Amino acid sequence: MKKYLFPGLLTLFFVLSAIGHFAEWSATLQFVISAISVIFVAGFLGKATESVSHYAGQRLGGFLNATFGNAAELIIGILLVKEGLFDMVKASITGSIIGNLLLVLGLSLFAGGLKHKVQHYNVSLAGMNGSLMIVAIIALFVPAIFLQSHELPKEHITSLSIIVAGILIVAYLLWLLFSMITHKDYLADVTETNAEELPHEHKPAWSKRQSILYLILATVMVAFVSEWLVGTLDTFTAKFGLSEIFVGAFVVAIVGNAAEHSAAILLAMKNKIGASVEIAVGSSLQIALFVAPVLVFVSHLFGRPMDIVFTAIELAAIGVSVFIAKSITQDGQTNWYEGLLLIAVYAILGVSFYLI
Amino acid sequence: MKKYLFPGLLTLFFVLSAIGHFAEWSATLQFVISAISVIFVAGFLGKATESVSHYAGQRLGGFLNATFGNAAELIIGILLVKEGLFDMVKASITGSIIGNLLLVLGLSLFAGGLKHKVQHYNVSLAGMNGSLMIVAIIALFVPAIFLQSHELPKEHITSLSIIVAGILIVAYLLWLLFSMITHKDYLADVTETNAEELPHEHKPAWSKRQSILYLILATVMVAFVSEWLVGTLDTFTAKFGLSEIFVGAFVVAIVGNAAEHSAAILLAMKNKIGASVEIAVGSSLQIALFVAPVLVFVSHLFGRPMDIVFTAIELAAIGVSVFIAKSITQDGQTNWYEGLLLIAVYAILGVSFYLI
Amino acid sequence: MKKYLFPGLLTLFFVLSAIGHFAEWSATLQFVISAISVIFVAGFLGKATESVSHYAGQRLGGFLNATFGNAAELIIGILLVKEGLFDMVKASITGSIIGNLLLVLGLSLFAGGLKHKVQHYNVSLAGMNGSLMIVAIIALFVPAIFLQSHELPKEHITSLSIIVAGILIVAYLLWLLFSMITHKDYLADVTETNAEELPHEHKPAWSKRQSILYLILATVMVAFVSEWLVGTLDTFTAKFGLSEIFVGAFVVAIVGNAAEHSAAILLAMKNKIGASVEIAVGSSLQIALFVAPVLVFVSHLFGRPMDIVFTAIELAAIGVSVFIAKSITQDGQTNWYEGLLLIAVYAILGVSFYLI
Repeated sequence: MKKYLFPGLLTLFFVLSAIGHFAEWSATLQFVISAISVIFVAGFLGKATESVSHYAGQRLGGFLNATFGNAAELIIGILLVKEGLFDMVKASITGSIIGNLLLVLGLSLFAGGLKHKVQHYNVSLAGMNGSLMIVAIIALFVPAIFLQSHELPKEHITSLSIIVAGILIVAYLLWLLFSMITHKDYLADVTETNAEELPHEHKPAWSKRQSILYLILATVMVAFVSEWLVGTLDTFTAKFGLSEIFVGAFVVAIVGNAAEHSAAILLAMKNKIGASVEIAVGSSLQIALFVAPVLVFVSHLFGRPMDIVFTAIELAAIGVSVFIAKSITQDGQTNWYEGLLLIAVYAILGVSFYLI
Repeated sequence: MKKYLFPGLLTLFFVLSAIGHFAEWSATLQFVISAISVIFVAGFLGKATESVSHYAGQRLGGFLNATFGNAAELIIGILLVKEGLFDMVKASITGSIIGNLLLVLGLSLFAGGLKHKVQHYNVSLAGMNGSLMIVAIIALFVPAIFLQSHELPKEHITSLSIIVAGILIVAYLLWLLFSMITHKDYLADVTETNAEELPHEHKPAWSKRQSILYLILATVMVAFVSEWLVGTLDTFTAKFGLSEIFVGAFVVAIVGNAAEHSAAILLAMKNKIGASVEIAVGSSLQIALFVAPVLVFVSHLFGRPMDIVFTAIELAAIGVSVFIAKSITQDGQTNWYEGLLLIAVYAILGVSFYLI
Repeated sequence: MKKYLFPGLLTLFFVLSAIGHFAEWSATLQFVISAISVIFVAGFLGKATESVSHYAGQRLGGFLNATFGNAAELIIGILLVKEGLFDMVKASITGSIIGNLLLVLGLSLFAGGLKHKVQHYNVSLAGMNGSLMIVAIIALFVPAIFLQSHELPKEHITSLSIIVAGILIVAYLLWLLFSMITHKDYLADVTETNAEELPHEHKPAWSKRQSILYLILATVMVAFVSEWLVGTLDTFTAKFGLSEIFVGAFVVAIVGNAAEHSAAILLAMKNKIGASVEIAVGSSLQIALFVAPVLVFVSHLFGRPMDIVFTAIELAAIGVSVFIAKSITQDGQTNWYEGLLLIAVYAILGVSFYLI
């Protein structure tokens, strides 16, 4: 029974959101249905990626996991870029980063900490994650501060954005090389343990061929549902008097990351806090170091270049999230109160974004 | 002889400042006398709290210590709020935070470090303190930066201030729960040792009934003397051409924290650096996470809402203090040079506030 | 043969740059020749300092090393101050700090990390270095932020600059006392090992008398070549349309630090990463805590006071460099990817400075 629940709901909401879109139901209804649908298709994509990873071997699998993990955000981002909604793209990037660093990580540490007094994970990985987060804010912060003090011609802003985006993508690819190949064992500990336990827990439900087919199917479904969701945003925000930035940073971001949320919290409760941190922090690093710069490049393909310059409040939100997350994760020990502090910061940012 | 010195001076200066106030002596004389008087009554309040704590048992005692510890600052703050001197309230909050983090902590590490080459304390407590400090600046920084980039209607600023203040108070109360109940031993080490030694050193001089009476008496005295002191500030600052912010941030803050200053330095010299850090950092956390938000709520009772938006230089001062204090305390090891660095930063801030 | 190569090239380029200067060759040619010449004379000065240090004993030697180490930067700085080129002085101070923290340190960690999987050094030294870096940015950041929010009369800015400069110099001298005398062993580990090995590797090539003579000669040569180099900058920057700040921050800074660059990288490859970090971080600390404040005092001798107020983008550049360097060095472990992150930040800053 339980086995058929997920595929059933997945299909139901996908079909409903398709009908809603083509029959032009009210924007609110379309928004709600396609938002729920995104959660299911993102979950489906996650499962398919995991299954393909299993057959592809650990190294290639890890890479697939890393790149497909944020596929939903990437596709939503490309659609927003195509529509020229640059402000909402940046707001949803901001929201993904702070949502992962504060809400996902915060709930994981809190839930895990209620069950386990103190949870531990690899200190070296914590340190590397912290440094990567710092590089990510530097890359977003430097162009913004330089532009604020010097009027630059438009083509210089474009060049600067392209070069910074290129540096970030190279840094991200080399991080995959470093963390998955040259220094895999240096960063391991929870991962090691997982590797032993995983075969017993997650016997792949699908064959190799099935897994690949499902991966392609899931990606296509994510693309469609994302498009339908994005189509409703304009009307929806106007109707409720919400600012574009609040919807981008909180609504779209929470919906797009729903799959990661539940996985990270469950792992934390099973005392696999290292895996939780990898999902939450790793996901926000992918957004900042890979998804955001790729969107800059993609915008050039559509002929309308998007720059990498974020607004002051977006930078402030990302900056404070990185600082508190770095401070809390850097000793490789976590507890319930640290989770709560992250949630408190998320609440402060949420209220501030809502009120402007 | 020595036994009667403190009560004698306490009474003498209290009576003198009362006479000065009602006989309307010159503002300067009144200021000097009531400033000295505040130091004595704050010391008296500290002793009474400690004695009541002894009878109340460790947990309730710790809580009383934590809440009465900054009673003088809180009462001075309430009086300033009542008079509508919001700028001076914020300046004195700023001053209390940086005074504790830089001057009290700096002098403690320096004095302790001259006697003991390297002093150690609990690294986990250091980490938690650091994260709480970061949350405190985020809470003050976020509303300020959002307001700078977006014009907000006055009632939104009021709502934002109330909500942020509420979040901080909840975070502070849960910190008491975490640090005194659920993770008491995780954060202990110096505290443990103290617990064993304290009975011998501090046999309570007063009975239970006496202690409670003295606690009430001391609180009333603090309230009166604080009121008289605040009454002189306007005339005093005008006369010497000092800015309100310099007086609030340096003069009022030093006077109001005099009791903590001496206690922290003495403990450091006895190699109880953990207790020193707890007084200095703990006190500044109380101000930021409890006293400041309570004052926001209190201002609503007086019908003149105070917002939680600090000026750029106050935020800069608090921000740099938190960064250097976090950097110095995070490894759980201290030495004389680290104390000196804190004092150097205090001097730079002091000169800057004096010159504007 | 190899033995005569360095003195030969040193003499050749020194003579060439002298001829170029007096025969008034084209600015570009003069610039190139004297830039190469600075690299050689800085290397000569480094060798002479090392040799004198050998005879002076470890303590006095360390002090000499510390003060003569940045002699080239100091002399270039004094010449720029004399010409009133305050913007270029500050740009070259900025460039020296970020060049050492990002390029020198980055290349060292990268080169060392390619040969050695993980390199270790003293964690206590890492912590102290981090705190000193924070104090350095605070000292530069506080006057700038206070000035931005309050209009100050010119003489107040001058007083503030002098006092902050004085505090930094005192802090730096006490750091020498702390690190070389009172807590020498606390910060040692790589240094210890070096002390044992050095005699075998670096038998001083020169006698005591020779060493002192060479030290004086090298200092004089540095002074001359620096003067000639500075003389060409105006014409050179104008000709290539480069901003003064780009030339100061990248060209002058790279040339002036060439000697440190090669030394630090070679030491890292020999797995003496502690010594590399000391050169790179130590050098940037000297610039911030000693060279910059000395230049403020020197400007008063020339009758044209220079303030200590840096521009927003200079502060941003120094700030981000300190944050990433602190984050990477604070755990006392390094690897090739951390070096690469530092170089990535340097590239982002370089492109930004170039485009404005």
